[in-house]
Amino acid sequence: MIIKILFLIIFPAYANVISKDRVETQSDCALTESLKEEIQKYQPVVDRIAHEILNGKFKGETYNSLLDFTDKFGARMVGSTNLENAIDFMLEEFKKQGLENVHGEKAEVTHWIRGVERASVLSPYEGNLPILGLGTSVGTPKKGLKAGVVVVESFDELKALPDSEVDGKIVVFVPKWESYGKTVIYRARGAVEAAKKGAVASLIRSITPFSIGSLHTGMQVYDDDVPKIPTASITVEDASRLLRLYRKNETITIKIRMDDYDAGKTTSRNTIGELVGSVYKNTSVVVVSGHLDSWDVGVGAMDDGGGSWISWKAVQYLKAMDLRPKRTIRAILWTGEEFGLLGAKAYETAHKSHEQEEFNFFIESDAGTFEPRGLDFTGNKEAECIFKEVLKLMTPINATEFDSPADGGPDVSWWMKRGFPGASLLNKGEKYFWYHHSAGDSMLVEDTVDLDRGTALFAAAAYVIADLSVDIPKTVTNLGN
Amino acid sequence: MIIKILFLIIFPAYANVISKDRVETQSDCALTESLKEEIQKYQPVVDRIAHEILNGKFKGETYNSLLDFTDKFGARMVGSTNLENAIDFMLEEFKKQGLENVHGEKAEVTHWIRGVERASVLSPYEGNLPILGLGTSVGTPKKGLKAGVVVVESFDELKALPDSEVDGKIVVFVPKWESYGKTVIYRARGAVEAAKKGAVASLIRSITPFSIGSLHTGMQVYDDDVPKIPTASITVEDASRLLRLYRKNETITIKIRMDDYDAGKTTSRNTIGELVGSVYKNTSVVVVSGHLDSWDVGVGAMDDGGGSWISWKAVQYLKAMDLRPKRTIRAILWTGEEFGLLGAKAYETAHKSHEQEEFNFFIESDAGTFEPRGLDFTGNKEAECIFKEVLKLMTPINATEFDSPADGGPDVSWWMKRGFPGASLLNKGEKYFWYHHSAGDSMLVEDTVDLDRGTALFAAAAYVIADLSVDIPKTVTNLGN
Repeated sequence: MIIKILFLIIFPAYANVISKDRVETQSDCALTESLKEEIQKYQPVVDRIAHEILNGKFKGETYNSLLDFTDKFGARMVGSTNLENAIDFMLEEFKKQGLENVHGEKAEVTHWIRGVERASVLSPYEGNLPILGLGTSVGTPKKGLKAGVVVVESFDELKALPDSEVDGKIVVFVPKWESYGKTVIYRARGAVEAAKKGAVASLIRSITPFSIGSLHTGMQVYDDDVPKIPTASITVEDASRLLRLYRKNETITIKIRMDDYDAGKTTSRNTIGELVGSVYKNTSVVVVSGHLDSWDVGVGAMDDGGGSWISWKAVQYLKAMDLRPKRTIRAILWTGEEFGLLGAKAYETAHKSHEQEEFNFFIESDAGTFEPRGLDFTGNKEAECIFKEVLKLMTPINATEFDSPADGGPDVSWWMKRGFPGASLLNKGEKYFWYHHSAGDSMLVEDTVDLDRGTALFAAAAYVIADLSVDIPKTVTNLGN
Repeated sequence: MIIKILFLIIFPAYANVISKDRVETQSDCALTESLKEEIQKYQPVVDRIAHEILNGKFKGETYNSLLDFTDKFGARMVGSTNLENAIDFMLEEFKKQGLENVHGEKAEVTHWIRGVERASVLSPYEGNLPILGLGTSVGTPKKGLKAGVVVVESFDELKALPDSEVDGKIVVFVPKWESYGKTVIYRARGAVEAAKKGAVASLIRSITPFSIGSLHTGMQVYDDDVPKIPTASITVEDASRLLRLYRKNETITIKIRMDDYDAGKTTSRNTIGELVGSVYKNTSVVVVSGHLDSWDVGVGAMDDGGGSWISWKAVQYLKAMDLRPKRTIRAILWTGEEFGLLGAKAYETAHKSHEQEEFNFFIESDAGTFEPRGLDFTGNKEAECIFKEVLKLMTPINATEFDSPADGGPDVSWWMKRGFPGASLLNKGEKYFWYHHSAGDSMLVEDTVDLDRGTALFAAAAYVIADLSVDIPKTVTNLGN
């Protein structure tokens, strides 16, 4: 998932909305008795959905299908032919599995190329220094660059140094791990802050709470008015050692070679398929989504294969069970998420003129598909009351926990931030960042039962919301984008 | 640690001794009352040792000293100048910290060079395939080699294939993880078994129960009469994917380039220092040891920095506490362990003519220095009874568990196998193989309190055994070596 903090950098206007603390809201709902009863009457259909997916004919299919897909395509970085091949494959797969109105919608995306990336420590010891360039990083000169090193634990520490101490150096950021949301700012902005002080490159401790010599990539953002310098992650192990050596006043010299470069813009597609509503077809749509693109290390099974699969498989299974709700449920596999929500942005632009009529509710999973606990939610108070009543139906999936706001759906956060209601998967994702954006993002992280439960939860929630007699209320503001 | 199975391959004569099952022995000891009382009288001195190391002036020193050492020297592969520099440094450090008769003893060792190592999958997908060559592997031709792939889960499966299906191919071994002792045979013997069938290279799933895209190296052994082919580890993630693709009848092609080579023999040294006994100087010595060499990935903080440090620091602290036992306690930091116990072997050869008189007891730690539970032991029944009584003294360190045989001391296993008594650290090492022989072997694995406890345990056990009125009984047989 792309993270809040990076989002804030790109779109500071939304800061007030997404920086609010996650709090359990009070239970002071005043639903009409008739609506409450209406929702409760969906219990048998939720039971059936749960049964068919957890123990019936769909049991295990979500995992097996994702396994086949990730084995076939592996990593799917935006801009790559491989991602476009995967999108072609998924458009065919959507059709094959009975989704309706299957099509791709174009999005202009970044095309960044990772070249050879090598580094070594020349002093005070001699050794290989494994690095993994950050998305959008420029390269070094062809022969590499060699420079003295400044190691800091924070931006404040960097800023306190005289420019003369940083000028011409490589800055190594070794922030303490607090949380992804707090620590990732060093990945997103390290290069800019280092370059402002005259640095020629920057390295960051991989943004993870746990490491077995693992490298974690991710996007970073340059400023137009600050020189662009090469930037990469190093392991937590190496970062800790460099920090200690620096604190002991050792003179550290590092050589870096990176052939990374920006290959300009290219076109990708959001992958779209529907279960068309029996009453409302192009109005009051419920979106269920994940992103199909991934980083180029690992195979993107967790980020966001799992989220994509529990979303589109939910639609497939509802169709196969002949459960067609009043409203359309639209499965979307976003493109370009990892490089700044590019697919979602293009989609919003294309649909903006009629979005109030078009969309009822936005669902995404992009924070892991570990054991489901429930759903987290963003929306106004009225909407929340309806949603909580719907969530009570999820007992057969053992996933009835409520939390707010929804923060596992970066692509759909566009709409939620502006007052559209939405939800994302609440799951036991404590180890999510162990694997995130690393070679560890593989099918070994995924579990077949957890994926069935996530799919059942998305299918049941989407079905009920799409079939209710009322729309989920929204209070849409028109924040610029 | 080098593992039992590899040991058995090199020295099958010891198979009957070291393959016996680990069993808790019966408590039918008949110690004389006077010896029992004598041992019990050591409680105050054990209490003092525990107090000084756990809470007194040595608290935290073992960790801090190991941290400084690993930060300074990093990886220490046998044959490297860096290891010899580290040995020079440790000889000085031993002297500085008051150890006596400090000296190095020469050992002829392997000098294997890891060159550039790269691989990629060419079909059915195109992608980088991270590899890490196995110790002693030969290289590929300079331009690399490209071949079709056979993937097997076991030697039996490989043997069942017609030679024509394997000839000219790369064999990828993807054994299920059972335990290190059981699974490591595929690392040790994969290249030989593959070459027997005509393969041109072999790859193995990293020998670990858990992975975040991590590569694990280790030694492998060629047979003289079988062609030597290049061999390397791949990640568990990639291995699983290749296995599945192979099972789906996909045609897999891999390209490998390895510039690794054997640079011939060179000389290294075991690092030795003593606390000379007040009564017996060169007879009835108690050896306390770990190995100083490491693999070239990670910094060897766990394997075997921790074991080395709890051993030699135990001797330093006893000296500093003015606790000089009747017998000499000899700290040995072995060299060349990772390439086949080379330092220990040389030491045995040099001391063989008078070993019966020279040695009383052998201690080593080389299976992690996580939270100590007690000591495991190898020796005859009489020796075991004395040892168990000594172990009861370790209550202030909360490490009184007994297990048998001792299996965390590969270097000293030479002597134990032949009837000398000995012990190794019993610790909560469940995650040992997560980090073993990988870039994850760093100071992040070590814990200052655990290291203090390990050091206190080794110091107290060595002191009491070295100071008793009786030698620990032995039944030495003269198995060849």
